[in-house]
Amino acid sequence: MPMIQEPILFYNKDAESYLGSLEAQRDFSQLFVITDENTNKHCLPLLTEWLGHKQFIEIQIRSGEEYKTISSCASIWQELTAHKADRKALILLLGGGVLTDMGAFAASCYKRGVQFLNIPTTLLAMVDASTGSKTGIDFDGLKNHIGLFSSPIATLIHQDFLKTLDQRQFKSGVCEMFKHGLIANADHWKSLISHVHEPEKLISDSVSIKINIVTQDPTEKGMRKILNFGHTLGHAIETHFLGSSGALLHGEAIAAGIILESFLSSNFGELSTIALEEIAYTLKEYYHLPSLSRSDQEAIYGLIKHDKKNHKDTVNFVALTKIGEAVYDATYTDQAIDQAFVFYNALTYR
Amino acid sequence: MPMIQEPILFYNKDAESYLGSLEAQRDFSQLFVITDENTNKHCLPLLTEWLGHKQFIEIQIRSGEEYKTISSCASIWQELTAHKADRKALILLLGGGVLTDMGAFAASCYKRGVQFLNIPTTLLAMVDASTGSKTGIDFDGLKNHIGLFSSPIATLIHQDFLKTLDQRQFKSGVCEMFKHGLIANADHWKSLISHVHEPEKLISDSVSIKINIVTQDPTEKGMRKILNFGHTLGHAIETHFLGSSGALLHGEAIAAGIILESFLSSNFGELSTIALEEIAYTLKEYYHLPSLSRSDQEAIYGLIKHDKKNHKDTVNFVALTKIGEAVYDATYTDQAIDQAFVFYNALTYR
Repeated sequence: MPMIQEPILFYNKDAESYLGSLEAQRDFSQLFVITDENTNKHCLPLLTEWLGHKQFIEIQIRSGEEYKTISSCASIWQELTAHKADRKALILLLGGGVLTDMGAFAASCYKRGVQFLNIPTTLLAMVDASTGSKTGIDFDGLKNHIGLFSSPIATLIHQDFLKTLDQRQFKSGVCEMFKHGLIANADHWKSLISHVHEPEKLISDSVSIKINIVTQDPTEKGMRKILNFGHTLGHAIETHFLGSSGALLHGEAIAAGIILESFLSSNFGELSTIALEEIAYTLKEYYHLPSLSRSDQEAIYGLIKHDKKNHKDTVNFVALTKIGEAVYDATYTDQAIDQAFVFYNALTYR
Repeated sequence: MPMIQEPILFYNKDAESYLGSLEAQRDFSQLFVITDENTNKHCLPLLTEWLGHKQFIEIQIRSGEEYKTISSCASIWQELTAHKADRKALILLLGGGVLTDMGAFAASCYKRGVQFLNIPTTLLAMVDASTGSKTGIDFDGLKNHIGLFSSPIATLIHQDFLKTLDQRQFKSGVCEMFKHGLIANADHWKSLISHVHEPEKLISDSVSIKINIVTQDPTEKGMRKILNFGHTLGHAIETHFLGSSGALLHGEAIAAGIILESFLSSNFGELSTIALEEIAYTLKEYYHLPSLSRSDQEAIYGLIKHDKKNHKDTVNFVALTKIGEAVYDATYTDQAIDQAFVFYNALTYR
């Protein structure tokens, strides 16, 4: 059985219809909905309505990256066990990327795998986590260190969930859309800049770009790696500030990563300086990004040494060759990375 | 990427050659060997010799079903992380079924999957756990409740490991061979009875029977279920006595399960009484099996209600139609199961 399937997507009204006729779509014994305290409050009422008030069992977990752990997984497994969930259970994952990543991992391991549906409720999860079949939890301080490739039976994307999202969360999601444009589709990048106040109109375009990349290389042996643009440094920045008062949202950290890695692509690769400036100023305008002190930089550098994408001691980056095109497995000297931080701090200095 | 691959098997001298030329077989960054205190002592010296004294890092876990837990997995993940294992690591699993099941699960989840080799050191693991792509751990008192379908790159079976196995462990392994004969190959059953003092000669035959079944139905949607013959009640018996002074080895519990389920197959199905007697007396002679008190029976009955193979509240059994042929999804009344216990106790009463 291939664990990675072509994603099946339903948008808006089609998603509602799918949920309304769930029994006709799938044979299942019991219906579970995994929520957190936010989606319980803001999203579950909508879902309940679309389900036509079908019976389901809610399993609520705590929201936030700090709960993306094996012990949260264990509590999902305990709840499923307590409710005698069998192999024919169907699990709906109602939440952001943390919830869908972890819920998909938990579902895929319960009794060697039960079927699940991704119902992303944040823009970030809609355009990123909910397609691509990556599932996982954080472990030992490392993001998504334990996980699997495993596909939902379908992903349901509905704009109505975005209405309850705060502006900062919303903008965080836009960053992955910017990234999709930068690595693979210059038109998408341009459209985003001109629709920066209504990027939700471009969700399906953005998802299509991602799926186009993923289906060519489902398990990330090669070109899928370009989706990690901005993430080598961005992930490390996110981890570094996690739990502190200056904690960044994922998209904000990735925006910083994109600026840094665009500088590296330009000064040590093929990206033009005009393109670098367009990227750096667009993201600097759109996000509030922190300066990075010398000690921040050192901690971030230590963290990238542990990235999943590395092979032995080399740190691999994605580099842009131009807006809309990227290559993977670029490497840089420590000094080059230092210079990228200097450029970044000049840009964010207020 | 299909997570279930046709098993690749190497026996004895071929297994030695494979290990001797590991770099030629596979591209890997670091070599890890997972052992327990028994295989560290009795099996690792042989493995080290066959590896031609190649460098590897040993990760030792504690032996025994009671350590087949998520926390043992976490300690494997911690060791891999501490040694900076990357996605190109290769993990050799040197042990019995507990170790190979759990090690395969841990390897399959580490950084979304690193490659592993099964090197079963008990007869039971050779003929059962090390092929078929089932991986897992126990959870919440339930056997293999959390796990995956995931295949090793190869399984290496070497008889020299059996020399260090005690007689009771060895005989436990023979039970799965008996089962393979009973469900799918009457000749194998007859051969085992005539070679009962040297069943190791029949290992590759027994593995072939299992693989033939598994490859027709890798994820157990249908006919693969026949491999669970004797296991619905056998698993429950094993779990019931786990940790007590009367703890049974897996094969012993399954032998009891086979007797019980053969009775059910005969008295409520198609199996002839002559075949039932042949099976019951053969297994009773070969194993020391305990009688089951009324309270044992009640506890065992409670446990089968939680079997992974169940759908809603029905308990599904495999039934023999004759020696060498089985069907799945048989169901029995509570009274029938009571009668099976009466028959079993009559047989084991001393």
